[in-house]
Amino acid sequence: MAGNSFGKLFKLTTFGESHGEALGCIIDGCPSGIKIDRDTIQNALNRRRPGYNHSDDKNVTGTTRQEADEVQILSGVFEGFSTGTPICLIIFNARQRSKDYNNIKDVFRPGHADYGYFAKYGIRDYRGGGRASARETAARVAGGAVARALLESMLPKSEQPFSVIAYTKEAAGIACHDIHLSQIEKNQMRAADAWAAEKMLEKIEELKRKGDSAGGIIECQITGLPAGLGEPVFDKLDAVLSHAILSIGAVKGIEFGSGFESARMTGSTWNDPMREGMKKSEKTDILNPHFSSNNAGGILGGISNGNDIIFRVAVKPVPSIYQTQNTITKEGKNTEILIEGRHDICVCPRIVPVIEAMCYISLADLFLQNKVAKASEIADENE
Amino acid sequence: MAGNSFGKLFKLTTFGESHGEALGCIIDGCPSGIKIDRDTIQNALNRRRPGYNHSDDKNVTGTTRQEADEVQILSGVFEGFSTGTPICLIIFNARQRSKDYNNIKDVFRPGHADYGYFAKYGIRDYRGGGRASARETAARVAGGAVARALLESMLPKSEQPFSVIAYTKEAAGIACHDIHLSQIEKNQMRAADAWAAEKMLEKIEELKRKGDSAGGIIECQITGLPAGLGEPVFDKLDAVLSHAILSIGAVKGIEFGSGFESARMTGSTWNDPMREGMKKSEKTDILNPHFSSNNAGGILGGISNGNDIIFRVAVKPVPSIYQTQNTITKEGKNTEILIEGRHDICVCPRIVPVIEAMCYISLADLFLQNKVAKASEIADENE
Amino acid sequence: MAGNSFGKLFKLTTFGESHGEALGCIIDGCPSGIKIDRDTIQNALNRRRPGYNHSDDKNVTGTTRQEADEVQILSGVFEGFSTGTPICLIIFNARQRSKDYNNIKDVFRPGHADYGYFAKYGIRDYRGGGRASARETAARVAGGAVARALLESMLPKSEQPFSVIAYTKEAAGIACHDIHLSQIEKNQMRAADAWAAEKMLEKIEELKRKGDSAGGIIECQITGLPAGLGEPVFDKLDAVLSHAILSIGAVKGIEFGSGFESARMTGSTWNDPMREGMKKSEKTDILNPHFSSNNAGGILGGISNGNDIIFRVAVKPVPSIYQTQNTITKEGKNTEILIEGRHDICVCPRIVPVIEAMCYISLADLFLQNKVAKASEIADENE
Amino acid sequence: MAGNSFGKLFKLTTFGESHGEALGCIIDGCPSGIKIDRDTIQNALNRRRPGYNHSDDKNVTGTTRQEADEVQILSGVFEGFSTGTPICLIIFNARQRSKDYNNIKDVFRPGHADYGYFAKYGIRDYRGGGRASARETAARVAGGAVARALLESMLPKSEQPFSVIAYTKEAAGIACHDIHLSQIEKNQMRAADAWAAEKMLEKIEELKRKGDSAGGIIECQITGLPAGLGEPVFDKLDAVLSHAILSIGAVKGIEFGSGFESARMTGSTWNDPMREGMKKSEKTDILNPHFSSNNAGGILGGISNGNDIIFRVAVKPVPSIYQTQNTITKEGKNTEILIEGRHDICVCPRIVPVIEAMCYISLADLFLQNKVAKASEIADENE
Repeated sequence: MAGNSFGKLFKLTTFGESHGEALGCIIDGCPSGIKIDRDTIQNALNRRRPGYNHSDDKNVTGTTRQEADEVQILSGVFEGFSTGTPICLIIFNARQRSKDYNNIKDVFRPGHADYGYFAKYGIRDYRGGGRASARETAARVAGGAVARALLESMLPKSEQPFSVIAYTKEAAGIACHDIHLSQIEKNQMRAADAWAAEKMLEKIEELKRKGDSAGGIIECQITGLPAGLGEPVFDKLDAVLSHAILSIGAVKGIEFGSGFESARMTGSTWNDPMREGMKKSEKTDILNPHFSSNNAGGILGGISNGNDIIFRVAVKPVPSIYQTQNTITKEGKNTEILIEGRHDICVCPRIVPVIEAMCYISLADLFLQNKVAKASEIADENE
Repeated sequence: MAGNSFGKLFKLTTFGESHGEALGCIIDGCPSGIKIDRDTIQNALNRRRPGYNHSDDKNVTGTTRQEADEVQILSGVFEGFSTGTPICLIIFNARQRSKDYNNIKDVFRPGHADYGYFAKYGIRDYRGGGRASARETAARVAGGAVARALLESMLPKSEQPFSVIAYTKEAAGIACHDIHLSQIEKNQMRAADAWAAEKMLEKIEELKRKGDSAGGIIECQITGLPAGLGEPVFDKLDAVLSHAILSIGAVKGIEFGSGFESARMTGSTWNDPMREGMKKSEKTDILNPHFSSNNAGGILGGISNGNDIIFRVAVKPVPSIYQTQNTITKEGKNTEILIEGRHDICVCPRIVPVIEAMCYISLADLFLQNKVAKASEIADENE
Repeated sequence: MAGNSFGKLFKLTTFGESHGEALGCIIDGCPSGIKIDRDTIQNALNRRRPGYNHSDDKNVTGTTRQEADEVQILSGVFEGFSTGTPICLIIFNARQRSKDYNNIKDVFRPGHADYGYFAKYGIRDYRGGGRASARETAARVAGGAVARALLESMLPKSEQPFSVIAYTKEAAGIACHDIHLSQIEKNQMRAADAWAAEKMLEKIEELKRKGDSAGGIIECQITGLPAGLGEPVFDKLDAVLSHAILSIGAVKGIEFGSGFESARMTGSTWNDPMREGMKKSEKTDILNPHFSSNNAGGILGGISNGNDIIFRVAVKPVPSIYQTQNTITKEGKNTEILIEGRHDICVCPRIVPVIEAMCYISLADLFLQNKVAKASEIADENE
Repeated sequence: MAGNSFGKLFKLTTFGESHGEALGCIIDGCPSGIKIDRDTIQNALNRRRPGYNHSDDKNVTGTTRQEADEVQILSGVFEGFSTGTPICLIIFNARQRSKDYNNIKDVFRPGHADYGYFAKYGIRDYRGGGRASARETAARVAGGAVARALLESMLPKSEQPFSVIAYTKEAAGIACHDIHLSQIEKNQMRAADAWAAEKMLEKIEELKRKGDSAGGIIECQITGLPAGLGEPVFDKLDAVLSHAILSIGAVKGIEFGSGFESARMTGSTWNDPMREGMKKSEKTDILNPHFSSNNAGGILGGISNGNDIIFRVAVKPVPSIYQTQNTITKEGKNTEILIEGRHDICVCPRIVPVIEAMCYISLADLFLQNKVAKASEIADENE
């Protein structure tokens, strides 16, 4: 139990159900003195909303449910800065059409968490998936905005600015040919390739007509991260990021750097050679290496090596489809179900900010943990 | 810091360096009354040793270093049973040829954790990789044997017995055609296909001659696990397993069920339909569903659904190759390195028991956590 | 950091400042199926309010600030029962007279947390003490009501019903002569002796006229608790209760059973002899011992022994007095301060429900932890 | 379960039973670069040994059992410095006279943890108290020596050097008249008053002849600690210290500063006035206040205020007495017990280094936690 917190020093706890009173999060462990701006958090949340960057009639990927998602800061911020006390962010749920969900009350939807929650708890809030709803991720996005503020203000300045950028690399069977980061926010798919985005939308429109849905692959690039993040041996950077990303409902896999392709490579082609690099900062004598390649995805032995962090995420097709499906009742008897209501066809564009948020949260936590790893750095400030 | 523990209720902490005095683990949270047998733990450790199931002259995959790996139980077990107090398992290191490692003292090996440890801690035990050595996983295998004993004695008996079986599905570019679990322990690769095992070994022999190394893919099947394991929303079963598996040094990716292939599927083909199944136990009224397929890999919404758990793991090629590589010195200057000493060519067969161990440990922890999830089950025993 | 959570399995996190938007708590780890009633939580909160059981004009012990303290359940409860997901309880702050606090903005109040927060965080919400306000304990009382519901529904039924009862044993230098639990809620002091309560109030009235304040001693009795609670060696029952109780602002000491008097006793007078007792339950063969005395306060080796738990708590005088005091400014310069506003004279009666709440929370957590301590009990429910 | 760890960032886990193979600890979270010296750890352990500073024939307070207690460092230290990886310290048990304990195998000793362990776990290692033996505290003392090294090398240098000094303030009913720290290590009682030490020993000699035992009070002074340690609201400095100290078997109470005497004081006499003090360090602008008194014991609102930390601890009489006592058997039947073997008469002198060790461990942990409390301090080192 008690699985609703993530992180050790920068600790996020989320609460709330899809159709309950509210959902939100508490961040315990944000250092004092970080500038926290409600609008920045709101903007992050807006990116997660369905059809945010498009007029609704053109929005084919997402649910048509309109969520205002107005965030309030209830605690932990005073005169615009974090005070070191817990930050509570809350989003009250507008009244939803709960009747939509009465037909699924006693039946388990295939591909959903319904049966698992029932087997585990013997009771479930069936309205809109309750706690298992993707809506829970709004609280993560809000928390992620605070983590991002922490990282942006505290990471050492380097030549390459710190950024976490995720994008749809593939959806509905259509893959990006090229990666142009400038394209991501310009199309409804958050794809890194304008042409592929068009094709994805066509394919998704077609699936929508059939009452079907689509999956995809998200790629994430983290740049400007210093070497040294990650806590061996169990809280390796890749282990923590995997935990964070796989805790998002629709995700079925993750791979770093060359990932599964590594299986077919040899040591001589896989190893990333190191070459003399640039000096990192005034305070450290370590010269940052330059890596000639990046098969490791920026992580070796579970510790960031200063190279870009690269990973890819497998996203399953949305399980709520408008087709009759075989399933069972609460009593275990065979039945059929036809799910109605407003649902996403492909969650890729909406999962992008959630993946970024989980990166910010994981990195903020490991950044703080790394601050107490080396006596010489800790003692520094006392001289 | 403090990343050397895994689990919340069944908590494993490992310690020790490759060439230090000893390595071992403490298990805190093993319930009292579990039969703990030293020989069973020793047998689990023996499976991780290089060339265990083969005469050494034929052992082409692994290092020729001979580790006796004699485990001792130092605490927590009395008259053959766990007492509820911490179980300390220890393996003293036989004296190693430490001089082998003097040439890497001031140089970072490509593909290794060397630079990361140095960047993080400013100091590293360079002998055999120190804490970052794969040898640390021996402590996990020992701990996994205790977790297995817990699960085997405490999981509810079902028709399908509980088992965790991992095997090499692909190595050095050669994939298994068929999966025969009976083959796994019969070949040096722990491959599930005798023919493929032969081909893998040929290919690895060839790479060895070139001073190169190979990666691969491990598949893992968990059967007989009841529905209900996994703690939403952050400690989902797949999130915890990913954390556990990605904390193994050589692993670069994980996917569950249809995994990355899910990206190309639609909801109507991906969703696993449910059909009336068998009654689980006397105590519960829930009928276990039968799933017509298993694209979910036995996990939905982060909770086991009673179906088999299936996942695949990407294993990178061994970074210690017998070829001259470009790298930098501790001072950040360009240099070359030629790594000598005894090293694995492909870790797939040796990583199999480590993956299984991390599954046992994760499942034991989530099994205990699930015991306090539902009031009706907890209260049961008091009536 | 991240010190705003308490408990491992039943985990309470509180948030909120005295004069912020709201304060509240999240309970993560409440098993599903516990009846959770808003009115019960509200009643617990009402007990903590100043002058609750008396007309305000007679209320001499407490602040005259009127807090409605209306609690809302935002999540985790569905149709009256816990669902196993996080329970968020929230109390919005009515608009307070914030101007009262402007004169303490740049000055540290003696006996308060002001300087500590400033030294630690470099920033503090000075309005009403911010996070350090006793008002934070409202969130604990709300959480405690949920913990109590858990314990009352799940503890094994025994002859002696489960109860946690705290009361003022001494205040303003006046001690109770006799202990009559029936008197506690009948007087404004929550003293266990009607005569002493009168004397305490007279003394407090006198101190109020002088602009001074008083401390006291609270005693707490826990009955009906089974043997076995407490987790050696660090999370002993008395260690956890001490942590819980000392985390309440005004508390300066705790002692169990004979406590400090033990120092003057000998082993032959201190040891509580055991005699044949009653059978505990159908399921266990252990006969509950009868103890001829209770110098141990119901805890030996950190584990409850079935005897009543008894402890006493030292409560310091309220630091906000209406007298000029020597102090320093934020810049460290000498100054004087005269604190105005509405303040308690003696917090004893109001701290009683807070101490009870921290007991419920600690016991709920240790009760759940104890559920996974013994294999035979865990396995029981699977047969 | 899993209560064998203490601390969050500097995390100590102990293992081992009195008559098992070994006992020891793992420290996870010690920053790299701390000088760790085996002899220093050994010296700390020697102070805990019975009759350490006296010839054995004169040693009246303690057991005559001779424990060599040779500590070994198994991991985490390389070339004399911590590496940031877990430090395992181990003490192998010399072979003990286990037959001494056969008569208590099926009977619960009054005043001991025997019944609690049996009720909780259904099994106990009865040899010498097993895990509940005071011998477990040797592992804490070893861990405490590492925590001390961390603090001594990392705390900011101030005019008053950092020290943790505990001493017997009262034993067997005899209290120190004066406190002379220089006397502590000069007498067998570790009393701070030579005259009182004499009287205590006489009284203890008398109790020994009667087969009885004695308790006492230990006082502890911590000087040179900076303001800011302690993590509101649950991990307050006094709450954490109470948890740490009450986790020591024989302790029945703790009080800080004026402690229980606070109950009889008023706000005007209790509040410690602040006066202009000295500048703390080059890096901070905060002037350290001078406190005119110390009723708070150096802690306000759970945070250290720069004043000395003062607390007192109630120690119960040793429960193993050489007198016939009433008790019950494992089956719950009435019986008598006469405990033989070598036992302490009064643990005060031996508990002194254990209390100091738990202070070091708690402070090391809170010191590291405080390092990530304030953005301005964290960012410092990156400029």
